[in-house]
Amino acid sequence: MSIRQTIAEVLDRPATRNFITGVVLFNAVILGLETSDTAMALAGPVIVFLDVLCLSIFVVEIALKIFARGLSFFRSGWNVFDFTIVGIALVPVTQGLSVLRALRILRLLRIISVAPTLRRVVDGFVSALPGMASVFLLMALIFYIAAVMATKLFGEAFPEWFETIPHSAYSLFQIMTLESWSMGIVRPVMEVYPYAWLFFVPFILVTTFAVVNLVVGLIVNSMQDAHSQESNAATEDYRDEVLKRLDAIEQRISESRLHHK
Amino acid sequence: MSIRQTIAEVLDRPATRNFITGVVLFNAVILGLETSDTAMALAGPVIVFLDVLCLSIFVVEIALKIFARGLSFFRSGWNVFDFTIVGIALVPVTQGLSVLRALRILRLLRIISVAPTLRRVVDGFVSALPGMASVFLLMALIFYIAAVMATKLFGEAFPEWFETIPHSAYSLFQIMTLESWSMGIVRPVMEVYPYAWLFFVPFILVTTFAVVNLVVGLIVNSMQDAHSQESNAATEDYRDEVLKRLDAIEQRISESRLHHK
Amino acid sequence: MSIRQTIAEVLDRPATRNFITGVVLFNAVILGLETSDTAMALAGPVIVFLDVLCLSIFVVEIALKIFARGLSFFRSGWNVFDFTIVGIALVPVTQGLSVLRALRILRLLRIISVAPTLRRVVDGFVSALPGMASVFLLMALIFYIAAVMATKLFGEAFPEWFETIPHSAYSLFQIMTLESWSMGIVRPVMEVYPYAWLFFVPFILVTTFAVVNLVVGLIVNSMQDAHSQESNAATEDYRDEVLKRLDAIEQRISESRLHHK
Amino acid sequence: MSIRQTIAEVLDRPATRNFITGVVLFNAVILGLETSDTAMALAGPVIVFLDVLCLSIFVVEIALKIFARGLSFFRSGWNVFDFTIVGIALVPVTQGLSVLRALRILRLLRIISVAPTLRRVVDGFVSALPGMASVFLLMALIFYIAAVMATKLFGEAFPEWFETIPHSAYSLFQIMTLESWSMGIVRPVMEVYPYAWLFFVPFILVTTFAVVNLVVGLIVNSMQDAHSQESNAATEDYRDEVLKRLDAIEQRISESRLHHK
Repeated sequence: MSIRQTIAEVLDRPATRNFITGVVLFNAVILGLETSDTAMALAGPVIVFLDVLCLSIFVVEIALKIFARGLSFFRSGWNVFDFTIVGIALVPVTQGLSVLRALRILRLLRIISVAPTLRRVVDGFVSALPGMASVFLLMALIFYIAAVMATKLFGEAFPEWFETIPHSAYSLFQIMTLESWSMGIVRPVMEVYPYAWLFFVPFILVTTFAVVNLVVGLIVNSMQDAHSQESNAATEDYRDEVLKRLDAIEQRISESRLHHK
Repeated sequence: MSIRQTIAEVLDRPATRNFITGVVLFNAVILGLETSDTAMALAGPVIVFLDVLCLSIFVVEIALKIFARGLSFFRSGWNVFDFTIVGIALVPVTQGLSVLRALRILRLLRIISVAPTLRRVVDGFVSALPGMASVFLLMALIFYIAAVMATKLFGEAFPEWFETIPHSAYSLFQIMTLESWSMGIVRPVMEVYPYAWLFFVPFILVTTFAVVNLVVGLIVNSMQDAHSQESNAATEDYRDEVLKRLDAIEQRISESRLHHK
Repeated sequence: MSIRQTIAEVLDRPATRNFITGVVLFNAVILGLETSDTAMALAGPVIVFLDVLCLSIFVVEIALKIFARGLSFFRSGWNVFDFTIVGIALVPVTQGLSVLRALRILRLLRIISVAPTLRRVVDGFVSALPGMASVFLLMALIFYIAAVMATKLFGEAFPEWFETIPHSAYSLFQIMTLESWSMGIVRPVMEVYPYAWLFFVPFILVTTFAVVNLVVGLIVNSMQDAHSQESNAATEDYRDEVLKRLDAIEQRISESRLHHK
Repeated sequence: MSIRQTIAEVLDRPATRNFITGVVLFNAVILGLETSDTAMALAGPVIVFLDVLCLSIFVVEIALKIFARGLSFFRSGWNVFDFTIVGIALVPVTQGLSVLRALRILRLLRIISVAPTLRRVVDGFVSALPGMASVFLLMALIFYIAAVMATKLFGEAFPEWFETIPHSAYSLFQIMTLESWSMGIVRPVMEVYPYAWLFFVPFILVTTFAVVNLVVGLIVNSMQDAHSQESNAATEDYRDEVLKRLDAIEQRISESRLHHK
């Protein structure tokens, strides 16, 4: 067994997996403590050290995995996922970009790729997405058209909400979630343009209907998956059995006639 | 092959379809740029020219389609749809009606009639509507009755929300979406009419229940469609097979008896 | 044929039904006009007269129905419904009770009992209610307990929202609909009682979960109804057929053996 | 029959059960009256006495149950539930902890363990929970990560909402319920951090999608339970019957051949 095979075998052991899970959970606590001023004042250097230690373990683990499996490592979506979120944590933040520092916490998402239960849930979510692609495309179209219209119609009078297309798209997303759509946005707009509801109410109806259809699609798909997995196997076994027996009976009758002749 | 047939054949080609799709997408970018003051200051005339060019292509395409197919062009709902949204863009806006200018963006909806995937999604949405007609009718009735009642009861004290039937209908729509219904409307109303909740809470319960029933209806319908398409074909084939074989067996037994006699 | 039978027969005719439908719709317009000050200033007496005329027609129709069918009239829920909503409109409003005047508009609900489509929808809604009774009971219990607790805990500091049990129940209903629950109510409460979220967040989770379960129950019930109506008839016919044929084959084989002996 | 058996038998009688139900309902009224200042001023001592009486009845009932069944009493989850909520009511509140006094009302939850209908609903709810465990775990993970990120990114500028991880978690829960997410929180945040929507909009989309998947899972599970209970029994009976008859036919044909030989 070559070194690469040995390493691959050691990495696949349940013990290694549990150890990595433990490191992720421990790192979660450390990253949580980092947000607390009291904790940082008391034991700042220790916390930072432990965080770097956790990160180092991840880096070593992924480096070993790449060494063991070569480029085939990147064939699995989950490996690319691990590689990316650990990679983000390694980007230097000398520029004082607090955003990149905040993104480090994404490292905790590794728990998903490590824990099979969570992995299955996320796989389920992701597998539902392609079926929703065409409805998403349609919603993107509706949003773009509505955003251009809203910018043209209300942009001048209400720059805060509809100045540019991105402003309008955000405001329309807020309206789609029904948050303060009337009291916060449409009523003030109607004071200037009394017929604004002719734009917003249909927009709400259409987007809500599209969202409902997305959910209905999800339900029907999950149902069919569940249904076919469960009962169809039994049904097909039974049907094959019946047809086989009918064959046998027919053949015996034919034989019995031959015997007579 | 006559000219009309040649044109019809050319229009149906995938290349033509892809070209039109490209023009719609290009037009989408152009119409987006039109909302940006910077872009208009830099290249206003070019943008307007390209917009007119796109529109001209649509007009020519639809004119050719009508020439090729004659009045049968208007038999397809999607053709009427294309004709209308391109027609809107042609209405002159000399009166400075910014609304009509904003409606031009609806031209982008042509992407739906051109892209089969989106077309199927919209066809699915539209086919779900008739099944919902009676619940819609019921909700329209509830809204009308509730709007008349709200106008009579609260119109005098709260003209902003319930002055006329349309005012009330809009406010009730807002209440049905649960947006600021209590803090924004019902609590202020209850300061004047302490029993106003006796009107609004049942209204929320009834309309919410109706909406839930609409969604349930959608789910059940989609489910049955999916179910029957998938498994029923297999089931019926199997059943026909079993009955045919049972027939054959019965006949053979009868024959075998005849042979004996 | 007695007079009672003749009247019953005339009332059941489609023409009578259509006439009543027409009167309800006409009355709807009249009652709408009554809310408009301009319309009342222009043609007040005519509108009031036409309203009284419509009401008289309903009274005569129901009186004739009671005469024709006697006490059995009250056996149908829809007849009791018609009787009640027309009865409400007859209550004198000399005391200036605007509430009773507003209730007159409920008369328009007669369109439900007259139009078979709407009637079926409402029958469907009502038939779904008993299955939801136990969840409703549970929610009533949760609301009562939560209202008593909220009154005890927050009543003194926030009398506007939690002074008495009915106040609390209303506020909790608002919180259940998620309207301004945090910004409007829980955040202000938390400024006095920092642990108030320990009461409100579980309340939201429990009631939302109960509502979701109500909807799930509705979906499952509708599905089973639809499923059994549609495919089960075909399945049972097929199964009966198969078993009958198997019987026939078995009998023929028995006979054929007898013939041999 | 020993005393313990006699007591167990008496406690299981429907009459005892109805009596306890009555006491719970009566206690509900009493606990409601306790929140009313007028009622307490009029008949305070009587109300307090009746409350203590109800509580005593519960204590005696549970003590008798424990005496009759011994430690096996604690094997049923519902018994532990009863024991806990009655126990809470017995904790002395000399320290003036109004919270504990408010918790006494939880005693009314006993109606659930006493009424079989409510018990079945709650059992149904509880049995749905394990299937949702992995999605809950995933949501807890998303919440923790998002709370740490929000605290790091926005904690300094918006201490009211994102000062510590618990603050952020509460605010994110509010955002997930879509309550004032934009007008109340994200728009103010965007005035300081214009790209804050890059954090909040994906958070809303992901958590909403996870919640939708929870509901879809609930629907599919309920459906399968309902489906299998109902139709599968009939299907299996039928299938067994067909296979048995085919066996019989085959055997008879074999026999008939033997007879010939």
